[in-house]
Amino acid sequence: MRANTGKMTAGKTAILGVGFLGASFALALREKGLCARITGFGRDQANLKRAVRAGIIDDFSLEAARAVHGADTVVFATPPGSFLALARKVAGSLKKDSLQIDLGSVKGDLVRRMERILPSFVGCHPIAGGEGSGIEAAGKDLFKNARCVITRTSNTPDAACVRAIRLWKALGSEPVIMDPALHDKVYALMSHLPHLLAYALMNTVSGEDPAWAEFAGNGFKDSTRIALSPPALWSDIARLNRENLLHYLRLYKKSLSEIEAGLKKNTRSGKKTLFKTLERAQKLRARLESSGR
Amino acid sequence: MRANTGKMTAGKTAILGVGFLGASFALALREKGLCARITGFGRDQANLKRAVRAGIIDDFSLEAARAVHGADTVVFATPPGSFLALARKVAGSLKKDSLQIDLGSVKGDLVRRMERILPSFVGCHPIAGGEGSGIEAAGKDLFKNARCVITRTSNTPDAACVRAIRLWKALGSEPVIMDPALHDKVYALMSHLPHLLAYALMNTVSGEDPAWAEFAGNGFKDSTRIALSPPALWSDIARLNRENLLHYLRLYKKSLSEIEAGLKKNTRSGKKTLFKTLERAQKLRARLESSGR
Repeated sequence: MRANTGKMTAGKTAILGVGFLGASFALALREKGLCARITGFGRDQANLKRAVRAGIIDDFSLEAARAVHGADTVVFATPPGSFLALARKVAGSLKKDSLQIDLGSVKGDLVRRMERILPSFVGCHPIAGGEGSGIEAAGKDLFKNARCVITRTSNTPDAACVRAIRLWKALGSEPVIMDPALHDKVYALMSHLPHLLAYALMNTVSGEDPAWAEFAGNGFKDSTRIALSPPALWSDIARLNRENLLHYLRLYKKSLSEIEAGLKKNTRSGKKTLFKTLERAQKLRARLESSGR
Repeated sequence: MRANTGKMTAGKTAILGVGFLGASFALALREKGLCARITGFGRDQANLKRAVRAGIIDDFSLEAARAVHGADTVVFATPPGSFLALARKVAGSLKKDSLQIDLGSVKGDLVRRMERILPSFVGCHPIAGGEGSGIEAAGKDLFKNARCVITRTSNTPDAACVRAIRLWKALGSEPVIMDPALHDKVYALMSHLPHLLAYALMNTVSGEDPAWAEFAGNGFKDSTRIALSPPALWSDIARLNRENLLHYLRLYKKSLSEIEAGLKKNTRSGKKTLFKTLERAQKLRARLESSGR
């Protein structure tokens, strides 16, 4: 009997890092009947015990190398700043023919380095709501109908890539192959930058008068929702994608300066300039809205 | 018989500007049985005809002075850049004892100038989702459970203020009295700035590669939703609140620079600085979330 055939796509599974994403992944596997036993690894024993009681994992270990013992699928679900150290710890204890994936938002060099340490690593980035925090917020439907970027490189074993794609499809996600360097550029602009912008807006309010937060309408709340995301995770992500982010921060400031210039000019032509600038933005956003994605 | 007693709080009503907000206000009045006949005014005859067919208004005029004839309540619902010209046009045609209110997002000087032109003007700013556009998006529940800022000044007639407050309460809104100058400071930061930031982010994407919009996840979509707002309205609002906005744009850039500085420092202390900066932001946003507003 092989644990890895038929519906048991993930087989025995180790979740390294049982937080919002790791716990959601575990719940999704169970919901779809895609796994055998799930073992958790983490540093916070109380959290791991809660996860067992909540039926998210079956058991746990405080040692990563023990947690991956006998696992058919190993899932890196900690903040990505700890991936390399963790990979080095587990590399010698992996089951033969096991699959290793991650759920992280930064790829680029990190994927290539992970691939050098692990025999069958496939970088995965599910594009799924990230402002959740902790196992209490986890949900089995997080990855359903969401894209999942698979950052295959020339070093990714074909068989591992096929298995990862099959797994995401079985979870109801839509896998999309992308080069890891391009991934980091695209998501620096489309995800990492918006997070930093939202944190900066909250800090502007904080610096002016935190009590004004109570005047927030739905527009403010929507546009700062991602500032609910865990700061430890996002400082990790930002630092790992530093160069791209600094680049897009510069471009963003230029876009701000364009608006500022139109606003400063108290003339009929200034009015038209400002309108045209906002209209260009609104048109692209409206196109995104009507694309139905 | 007085049209203005009992449940007929608004009586015969004139809506100047039948767009998203004006149409939503009309629908809300009807839903609650708070008005008699509703007359629309606007420049776009085809739009006004659609509004009649949709049952939003009963009739319309292309002349503002005619639209307010005999109205117990006159509602300014155009972009606020046209309020003063419109007020001058209707001032001589108002019914005795009528109430004039607006639904605009900018107050400050504008309210004081409107109060000089109109006999019973009360500045009103319902804090209700503004990214809607056009009568097709209008809804009767827009103002339900939403705050409405009433910018009473020393020149606002008491009776008019009482009537305006009663009207908003009857619509299910929560009226809050605020000085118009303070209103413009608070909403420059809590609403007008976030709009400009969202437009700027869309323009950054537009400048890099508009096709990347298709990689947007929920975080990006939430944080740019207000960039769907009509550019004509928001360039008006931004220009009318220029000084406050330029001030907060400067403070926002400082908040961005703080994050940028933490990101640039590739050291353990840089890591800690960045984390602390994001954590401060996240804490205030989490407090807003748990306030349940």
